[in-house]
Amino acid sequence: MNAVNLAEHMHTLGLQAREASARMASASAAARSGVLRGLAALLRANVQALQADNAKDLERATAAGLAAPMVDRLKLTPKTIETLAVGCEQLATMPDIIGDVVGLKQQPSGIRVGQMRVPIGVFGMVYESRPNVTIEAASLSIKSGNACILRGGSEAIESNKALARLVQQALAGGGLPAEAVQLVQTTDREAVGHLIAMPEYVDVIIPRGGKGLIERISRDAKVPVIKHLDGNCHVYVDDPCDLEMAVRVTDNAKTQKYSPCNAIEGLLVARSVAGAFLPRIGEVFSAKGVEMRCDPEAWEILRHVPDANLKEATEQDWFEEYLAPIISIKVVAGIDEAIAHINRYSSHHTDAILTRDHVHAQRFLREVDSASVMVNASPRFADGFEFGLGAEIGISTDKFHARGPVGIEGLTSLKWIVLGNGEVRS
Amino acid sequence: MNAVNLAEHMHTLGLQAREASARMASASAAARSGVLRGLAALLRANVQALQADNAKDLERATAAGLAAPMVDRLKLTPKTIETLAVGCEQLATMPDIIGDVVGLKQQPSGIRVGQMRVPIGVFGMVYESRPNVTIEAASLSIKSGNACILRGGSEAIESNKALARLVQQALAGGGLPAEAVQLVQTTDREAVGHLIAMPEYVDVIIPRGGKGLIERISRDAKVPVIKHLDGNCHVYVDDPCDLEMAVRVTDNAKTQKYSPCNAIEGLLVARSVAGAFLPRIGEVFSAKGVEMRCDPEAWEILRHVPDANLKEATEQDWFEEYLAPIISIKVVAGIDEAIAHINRYSSHHTDAILTRDHVHAQRFLREVDSASVMVNASPRFADGFEFGLGAEIGISTDKFHARGPVGIEGLTSLKWIVLGNGEVRS
Repeated sequence: MNAVNLAEHMHTLGLQAREASARMASASAAARSGVLRGLAALLRANVQALQADNAKDLERATAAGLAAPMVDRLKLTPKTIETLAVGCEQLATMPDIIGDVVGLKQQPSGIRVGQMRVPIGVFGMVYESRPNVTIEAASLSIKSGNACILRGGSEAIESNKALARLVQQALAGGGLPAEAVQLVQTTDREAVGHLIAMPEYVDVIIPRGGKGLIERISRDAKVPVIKHLDGNCHVYVDDPCDLEMAVRVTDNAKTQKYSPCNAIEGLLVARSVAGAFLPRIGEVFSAKGVEMRCDPEAWEILRHVPDANLKEATEQDWFEEYLAPIISIKVVAGIDEAIAHINRYSSHHTDAILTRDHVHAQRFLREVDSASVMVNASPRFADGFEFGLGAEIGISTDKFHARGPVGIEGLTSLKWIVLGNGEVRS
Repeated sequence: MNAVNLAEHMHTLGLQAREASARMASASAAARSGVLRGLAALLRANVQALQADNAKDLERATAAGLAAPMVDRLKLTPKTIETLAVGCEQLATMPDIIGDVVGLKQQPSGIRVGQMRVPIGVFGMVYESRPNVTIEAASLSIKSGNACILRGGSEAIESNKALARLVQQALAGGGLPAEAVQLVQTTDREAVGHLIAMPEYVDVIIPRGGKGLIERISRDAKVPVIKHLDGNCHVYVDDPCDLEMAVRVTDNAKTQKYSPCNAIEGLLVARSVAGAFLPRIGEVFSAKGVEMRCDPEAWEILRHVPDANLKEATEQDWFEEYLAPIISIKVVAGIDEAIAHINRYSSHHTDAILTRDHVHAQRFLREVDSASVMVNASPRFADGFEFGLGAEIGISTDKFHARGPVGIEGLTSLKWIVLGNGEVRS
C-alpha cells in the first residue's frame, strides 16, 4: 500500500468503527452474548482451516529464522483454539455491565442523579505475534459494547486475518455490524502511526508488547493510552511473619515463572527476621540457580549458603526488571524503609507484604503507590482472571482511568444521568 | 526569572509536591478535615488583609484598562471570602472517600480481591483571573489527599499569593506539609510549559479557562489532561410531552444565564408537536430578545410570532456554542433523528429530552453519547454542586477517567488490594 492508500484505508477503518460503535452501544446484552456464542461455535467448526492459515505464518517464521519459542507463540493448535472458544463462552455468560446505573440519588432540587456505565466507543489495539490476542480483544470488545480496530504483528498476519474473518462472520450472523471488529489488513508499520492519531475515530489505544513499542506509542499517540510498562515487583518480608509461608510465597513469586510482569524482581527483608529468613530462601534460590544481587547486609548473611550465586547489588539493580533467574535482595529497618524503597524504585505494578502485623498490613495497603498491593499473597496473582474480571485486555501501570488488570470495566465510562419532573435551575 | 531559574523553580515545586503527596495520602481524614476548618477560620480572620492584596490586582487591572466585568471577576469581597470559608467547612464535613474499599470478593484461589480509593498524587491546575479558584482547588486537593501546583492568571497574582499563603499556613497548622499546595510564584508564561511536561512530578493537569488555553495545553501536555472544551448542549422536545413543562425547561435552559457551558445552544422539536410548541417558546424567546436560527420547517412556524428575531440556520449553526442570546432550532422526525443530530453535532457535554414516553426516555439516556444526559430537567443542572458532589474542580468533556462534573472522586484512583493467607499461584 502506498502512503495515500494507507491513509485512506485507516480512515475508512476509523469511520466504519465509529459508526459501528453507536450500533454496538445500543445493542442488547442478549445480542452481544449471542455473537460471542456464535464465535465460539465458528472457532470450533474451523479448527482445520485456522491451522491451515496459521501454517503459512509458521512457515514464513521458520524460513525467516525466528527463534523456536517465538515460533511457538505463533502456533494455533486445536487446544489453543478450544481455549479461545471457551473464553468466548465464559464472557457470554458473565453479567452484562453496559447500562448499569449506580448511585441514583435524589438531590435537593428534586432531580435524581446517578451514573450509567456505557461503552467507551472505539479502541485501537496494537500487539505483537500471539494471534490469540485477536480473539481475546475482539470478544472483550463485543462484550463491552465497543468497536475496535486491531493491529497485530506482521508474523501472525494470516492467522489474524482468518480469526478476524470468523469474528466478523459471528457479528453479522448475530445481526450486529461486522465493522465492530476490524483488523488492519496491512503489515505496513505506518499503519500504527495513523491508528494512534485519529482522535475523531479512536477513543483509546491499548498497546501490548515490548517496552520500546509502548514507549513509542505513548509518545506519539494523540489519544489516551492504557499502557503497561515495567513490572518491577517486590515482596517485603516483615516482622512478625510466618517464615514458612514467607519462603513459600517468595519462592512462588520469583521462580514459578521468570518472564511474567508480575514475577518479583526485588526482595526486602526486615532486619530483625533477616537472619532467620534469608538463609532459608537463599537455599531455595541457590537450588534453582537464581542469582542474588545483595546489599552488604544480605550478602553477609547469604554468603554462608552453599553454592549461592551472589553478586553485589548496584543502585541500578533496585530499578531493574530482570525477567530472569535474578533477584535483588535488601535488608531494611522495617515497614517505613520498605514502603519508601518500594515507592521509590518499584514500577508501581504489584508489591506484597508478608506479615502478621495488622497495622503494618493496613499501612502497606494504603501507602504503597502501586496498581496492585497485596498482603500475604504472591504477586503472581496480579492478573485479570485471578482477580475475577473474567478477562483481561491488559495491565495498566498508570493511575488515570484504568489501573492494574483491565477487564470489561476498563473499556467503559460512566456518564451522568438525570431524571427530573420538569425541574429548572434557579 | 530567567529560563534557567524558571526551570529550577518549577522542578523544585514538582519535587516538593511529589514528596508532600505521599504524606497527604497517608494523612488521616481527621487531619485533612482539620486543615480545611483551619483554612476557613484563617480566611475569615484575614478578610481585610486579603482585600488589601486584592486591591493591588484591581488597581493594576483598572490601570491596564481591563473591561469592567473582568475586573469584577477579580474582586474579593467579604461576601465572596465568606463563601469560600463556608465551602471549606462543607468539604470538611463531607464523607471522606480516601481508603474506601469496594467489591472485596473471595476468588477461587482463596485470595480476597477488592479496590481501594486512593489519591491520584499531584495535580496541576492552570486557570484564569478568578482568585476564588485558588481556594476551591486547594480545598479539593486537601480533601482528596492530593498535592497540587496552582498556576493562576497573572491579573490575580497578588490575590492568589495571599490566598495560597493562608492555605499553607492552614496545612502547617494542621501538621501537614505546606508544600501540599503550592502556587507558581511567577506570571511568566513559560511556567505553564514546564508544569504540563513534568510526568515525574505531576500526574494530571486540569485547565480551566478559554478554549484556546485548553487546546494548547492538551496539545503540549506530557501527562493526562482533564479537559473541558465546548458546551454545545441541546434540549429535544419529544412527542408526547407536557408542553407547559417544555416551555418552562427550555426557557430556563437557554435564558436563565447565557454564558455557562451548560446553557443550551440548540433546540430540537419533534415534528408532531412543533406546531403546538414552537409558537409558545418563540414568544418567550422573542420577548427576551433571543435570536432564533431556524431550519426551514421551524422558520415556517415561527415566522408568525410577532417581533421574532429569526435567521436561517446554516450547517455551522448546529456546531456553534453561542454563549449568547442566540439559539438554533430544528424540527426533527422524532427520537431517532434527535439522537442522531445530537451525537453528530453536540459537544458531548449535556443534552436533555423532554418527554412522557418511557421507551424514548430510556433510549435517550442510553444512546446519547454525552457526559450528562437528562430526562425532563434543565441542562443547567449539569454542575458538581447540583449533582451532589459537594464541590467541582471542573467539567470533563472526555470519556476517559472523569466524565462530566469532576469532584473529589475524579481526583482519586482505584488500586487493587489483595488479602491472602499465604496463597501461591499454581
